[in-house]
Amino acid sequence: MYTIDEIQKLINDYIDNQKFEGEPKELYAPIEYILRQSGKRLRPTLCLLACDLFGGNIEECMVPAVAAEIFHNFTLVHDDIMDQAPLRRGMETIYKKWGSDVAILSGDTMLIKAFQYVLNTDNKYRYEVFAELCKVALEVCEGQQLDLNFETRDDVTLKEYLEMIRLKTAVLLGSVLKIGAIVAGADKKSQDVIYEFGVEIGMAFQLQDDILDCYADVDVFGKMIGGDISDNKKTYLYLYALDMAIDEDEKELRKLFKMPKGRDEEKIKKVLEIYDRYAVKHEVMAEIEEMFDCAIMRLVTELDVDAERKNVLLDYAKYLYNRNK
Amino acid sequence: MYTIDEIQKLINDYIDNQKFEGEPKELYAPIEYILRQSGKRLRPTLCLLACDLFGGNIEECMVPAVAAEIFHNFTLVHDDIMDQAPLRRGMETIYKKWGSDVAILSGDTMLIKAFQYVLNTDNKYRYEVFAELCKVALEVCEGQQLDLNFETRDDVTLKEYLEMIRLKTAVLLGSVLKIGAIVAGADKKSQDVIYEFGVEIGMAFQLQDDILDCYADVDVFGKMIGGDISDNKKTYLYLYALDMAIDEDEKELRKLFKMPKGRDEEKIKKVLEIYDRYAVKHEVMAEIEEMFDCAIMRLVTELDVDAERKNVLLDYAKYLYNRNK
Repeated sequence: MYTIDEIQKLINDYIDNQKFEGEPKELYAPIEYILRQSGKRLRPTLCLLACDLFGGNIEECMVPAVAAEIFHNFTLVHDDIMDQAPLRRGMETIYKKWGSDVAILSGDTMLIKAFQYVLNTDNKYRYEVFAELCKVALEVCEGQQLDLNFETRDDVTLKEYLEMIRLKTAVLLGSVLKIGAIVAGADKKSQDVIYEFGVEIGMAFQLQDDILDCYADVDVFGKMIGGDISDNKKTYLYLYALDMAIDEDEKELRKLFKMPKGRDEEKIKKVLEIYDRYAVKHEVMAEIEEMFDCAIMRLVTELDVDAERKNVLLDYAKYLYNRNK
Repeated sequence: MYTIDEIQKLINDYIDNQKFEGEPKELYAPIEYILRQSGKRLRPTLCLLACDLFGGNIEECMVPAVAAEIFHNFTLVHDDIMDQAPLRRGMETIYKKWGSDVAILSGDTMLIKAFQYVLNTDNKYRYEVFAELCKVALEVCEGQQLDLNFETRDDVTLKEYLEMIRLKTAVLLGSVLKIGAIVAGADKKSQDVIYEFGVEIGMAFQLQDDILDCYADVDVFGKMIGGDISDNKKTYLYLYALDMAIDEDEKELRKLFKMPKGRDEEKIKKVLEIYDRYAVKHEVMAEIEEMFDCAIMRLVTELDVDAERKNVLLDYAKYLYNRNK
């Protein structure tokens, strides 16, 4: 079996050797630009980890793993247009650097490229990988649309929020793990278990992002806290606080989140005071921990694979869970 | 063999019976909206015609034909954002009706849906259909990017313009015909001939659009002529005129196409006068005719199929060629 470092090196080397250039260069330069950025490459990593866990040949899994990474970056490119986001991973977004027309079109091209990559997988499982990628791609769009809907709604429930993050970010983690399992020839039950594990850790990570945005150690986090509050983003913390708050606090919180977007230290302070009044951080962190533990237990107890084979994936999940940025 | 009316009825019935709805409805309502509009459905028609020409079972071809129609409509949805187009087929565009965020996202969803449709084709040719759809989808994006590039360039050549329309619109006609041939089990040579035929008629039709926009019979055309001139669109006519015009006319033409966009009868009149001075309409129509005749001859002479089997497709191409709107 491979270590996490070996797997990440294999992925980085493989992606470094891919060519994303083409003509016209105005279309392909942005694709090179974003795919050359060294992010966590979480999705291909999970894909190969799952393949290795089930004893598959991870070389065979490289193509669908990269397809997933390209697909994920496509969603970032289009999301950044909708969010009018200037920065991503500390660099200018394609939207900011080249404008929205190019961002739409190079995003489209990346989505097609992701599917084209899958064509190069072995005939044995090409169809299954394709079907999984289509299914999850639609779900991610649905999640993004729910997120857009929430911006103008005042009555989003915690349950709806969880469904939104499930679709927008968590299912893709489930799918890349499942794709790794498919390539390794794992049985249907194992595919389902590892998929559910991925969805659960995906949701836990996403809720952690909500927490970190408010409570991270600024020196480690690398940016100022309170970004979501400044953007009036209805995070799980906000919805949780609304749910718990008594009349006056609820009114105040709603009022604060109707202020114009933009940094306002006084507003952030007031929001965090309300959160503190209802122990929001503590309560939400407890929920996240339960979610994460449930995922770990699922992998430990429900997956019919030698315990030691699970360790690399489990350790990686725990490492991600304990991140503080 | 089927008549053109039979084929079009089969397609319309088939599409009418497809469900494009889903949740969240904000994402799927626009998809229903555009796919329920009764356009020419040129691409699925060509796909089935080719399948029938080669003696294939057109029922089997229905799924990839619809995939091509969904793909084509995806391109319209995203193009309309870039063009900020308010109307399409006499109805509000998705961009205008729901805004650009929804247009981006429902367009993305349509692109994924198109690929998902292909999953439902027979395993015999699924891979080939997929590969063709990926290839042509990338080309269409490349063509659209060239079109965007041309907006800010002053030195576009006629050759570059032809390459742009080849990629942006013509290759898709070639590919749908080729996909019909693939499903029918036609040999590689036949697939190539019908592909080239499609590309050539596609280019002829696109150049005809440039002509119609300036010279159509307004009563039949259904809208005012001179739209491209009002939009400063560098059409083949414009580039041809620039190429032919002597110094003063060239200067004048460039100046007219630097005026602010928007309807200006005086400007349209001046541009058309310059076009007339160089017999642009006549010359370009002659080129189109040559292109079209070349396509017809290719199908007649290079395709190893009984002559009478070719007639439905040939008649349909001629019918489209003789349209005046």
